[in-house]
Formats: sequence, C-alpha cells, structure tokens
Amino acid sequence: MSNLGKLFGVGVGPGDSELITIKAIRVINEADVIFTASSTKNTYSLAVEIARPHICKSAIIKSMSFPMSKDKKETKTAWDNNAKEIANILKKDKNVAFLTLGDPTTYSTFGYILQSLEYIMPEAKIETIPGITSFHAAAARLNRTLVEGEESLFITSGAYGGEQIKKVADSVENIVMMKAYKNTKQNNQALKETNFYENSVAISKCGREGEEIIEDIDQLETRKPDYWTLILAGKHSRH
Amino acid sequence: MSNLGKLFGVGVGPGDSELITIKAIRVINEADVIFTASSTKNTYSLAVEIARPHICKSAIIKSMSFPMSKDKKETKTAWDNNAKEIANILKKDKNVAFLTLGDPTTYSTFGYILQSLEYIMPEAKIETIPGITSFHAAAARLNRTLVEGEESLFITSGAYGGEQIKKVADSVENIVMMKAYKNTKQNNQALKETNFYENSVAISKCGREGEEIIEDIDQLETRKPDYWTLILAGKHSRH
Repeated sequence: MSNLGKLFGVGVGPGDSELITIKAIRVINEADVIFTASSTKNTYSLAVEIARPHICKSAIIKSMSFPMSKDKKETKTAWDNNAKEIANILKKDKNVAFLTLGDPTTYSTFGYILQSLEYIMPEAKIETIPGITSFHAAAARLNRTLVEGEESLFITSGAYGGEQIKKVADSVENIVMMKAYKNTKQNNQALKETNFYENSVAISKCGREGEEIIEDIDQLETRKPDYWTLILAGKHSRH
Repeated sequence: MSNLGKLFGVGVGPGDSELITIKAIRVINEADVIFTASSTKNTYSLAVEIARPHICKSAIIKSMSFPMSKDKKETKTAWDNNAKEIANILKKDKNVAFLTLGDPTTYSTFGYILQSLEYIMPEAKIETIPGITSFHAAAARLNRTLVEGEESLFITSGAYGGEQIKKVADSVENIVMMKAYKNTKQNNQALKETNFYENSVAISKCGREGEEIIEDIDQLETRKPDYWTLILAGKHSRH
C-alpha cells in the first residue's frame, strides 16, 4: 500500500494576520493542496488571504462549498463528496491543509470534514491545529476578562432569541453570543431580564477592516448589524 | 509629562511552543521587562520557557506572586502592589509583557492586573494579545469538535462537583470542565445523569511532556489526576 498524505485542519485565527500560530504557518507551508470553505458571507476567502504569505508557490488552492439544505440527505451527500475529494488527494501521498477562520473545532466547517472523512477513510491521518477564536480576539481587543476564578462561561448563538440564556442564567457568570445580528430585540430583552445587560458590549468584525465596538447593545436593534457581530456579557463588572 | 510605556497581556498558548502567535512573539521581543505569575503548580514558569527564544537579550525577566488569601483585603493589597510595580516601570517609558499560559482573558491572573492597574493608573496603555486556550488545544489534539452549528458550549470548573452541569444540561450541548482533578466522583455522576457521560474524554497536560488521554473518565476517580486535567463532553456523538 502506498503512503497516505495527511489532512491538517488549520485555524488561521480571527482575521488579524498576526494572530496566526507558528504551527499553522509551518503546516500551511508544507501543504501540497490548500482547501478553504467558500461562503456566501465573503466572496473571497479571508482565511486564504491570511494564509497566502505562508503558502508554498507550488501548492494548489481550492475552495469547497458546504451547502446547508433542509434536506439532510442532500447535505450529507455534499459533505461526503467533499471528503472524497480530500481522500483522493491523500491517497496520492499529498498533504492537505483545510483552512478555517478562527479555530477548526469551534463552529467550523472542518467538523463536517472530520465527520465524513473518518467514515469514508478511517485510516486517514488527521491533525488539527487550533486557532484563536473570534470571541477570544474580542475580549483581548476590549482588554476585558472573558471568564475568571471559578466562574463559568456560556457560549451560545443569537439564533435562539435569548431563550437559552434565560434558562441557564442562574448558573452562568459570563456569556458570549455569536451571530448577535439575529433576533436582536429578543436577545437584548433576555440579557436585561437576567442581569447580563449592564456589563455587555458588542463588537463587529473584530480586528478587521470595518471593526466596530458597540458599547450600547440596544443600538443593534435599530441598525442592521454585520454578520460578524458578537456580544460579550457578564453578570459582574468586567475589566 | 514623559511618555508612558505600554503593558501587554500576552497569551503564549497552551504549552506547545509552536502554538504561540506571531503577534505574541513580536510583542515579547519588543518588551523591556517580562513578567510572569509565579505559581505553586510549577516551580519554573512554563510560560517563560515558551517565550524564552523570543525574549530580547537585554530584557529583564521577573516573576510576580498572586496570593489567594481568604482575607479579600489582603488579596487586593497584594494585587495592587503588583500593579504598582508594573505602573512604576511603565512610567519610565518601558514596555512590559505580562505572560500568561493559554489566553490572558480566560482564567488568567492577567485579569487581576487589569483590574488593579486600571484603578491605580487609568491612563495606562494596555493591549491584550490572545492565546490558544487549553481546551482548544485539547479538542484539536483529539480531532474532536468542541461546538458546531447552532449548538452551545458551557465552560465550567470541576470545583462545583457537577451541580452547575445538572442545572444547565437541558440548554447545553457541549461541556468543557476545567480543573477536572477536583470532585471527580460527583462530576462524573452529574455527567452520567445528564447524558454527557457517553461522549466524554479527559486529557491531562495536553501537548506537554506527560500528556495523557483518559478515554474512560471513571478512571479519574481511582487515581489522582494531574492539576492540568480537563474533560470535554458532548450530548451528541463528537467527531
């Protein structure tokens, strides 16, 4: 049996080109083929832009689409086809780096690759290289503690309209709300009811062109927030 | 008024010396004074070891203690004294890098510095450089999704004996338990009762010498787990 290449899931960080690890740089540099998820959210891939100075000249760069159909079978077929495309490259003893903004294990399409590839090619060699997440970048940008001491941190999505927050509020000291562009009124209401409102702040496109810090999250309700908006909220005053 | 130096809170990542960002490397290299928290958990500072190749030869390296007394006033005085020591260096127009393992906003002593320094020196220039956390490194090490799609993630401490987990379980799909060396029996029991047990795994000293993956978290009960042990658990099968 011939040698197999290795698949690397590589986090390139939140958008600031300096917030990439030296491990990610090494792995990107050694890859024969670079994949990145194509997205309707950005026509060019920010992940590739961050990685570009580190990509070997002979490497091939490809994009991969991850349709999210309501038909689960259709979705699965698309993901399996993506995994097969990667598997075919690995079989030629080529190394593949699948780039992901932020971290590959945190709200990333790399999870779907892992899922499909481990099924269709159990012998695949896979290594994940972690990256700085958007919420860690946001907390750093604001010089704000995300979680400290024996506190807990709850990371959720604006998609729930704050329902989850109401349920867990008694046992949680800190909240990160991803996709805070959704259900802004309901989310803010939930943060108010649970005493997370006073110490809350929103940030859009953290560390990237067009970055905006929104101290008063009520403003999210009156203007259309960017897709890349998140809220940090704490029950206690944060520093 | 003379120029002020700048304080950088710098995350050096989880322990693997390659998991440091190029921004952290640049900032460390430009610092005049390097601080790190002295800890009873490790006699030498792992954070300094990771940073060492990037520290300028002329830089001074100092350690700083963060006593956790039951007397809150005593604790506050100690932290304020630490902040004053840093403030005195900043006043001499020297840049300070305060190193922290993992990320400076996530369970880090840097939070105490922020708190005290913003109080005693409101004009201080502060910049936080995020780092890869231990739980992101753990998920990557295991090629395991931490959180995906519209799921939520709850990060808590073993110090609670699982009580928090029981309270939030209905609204949470994924759990990270830091300090999983504590209350192992009660924590495991809570994970069992809430259906997080089947898809759980523990890891000690991830990415460092002596790393251990503990697939069966029951084993945590019968042997004394290392301080640097965490559990990743999911309600659904994880990849």
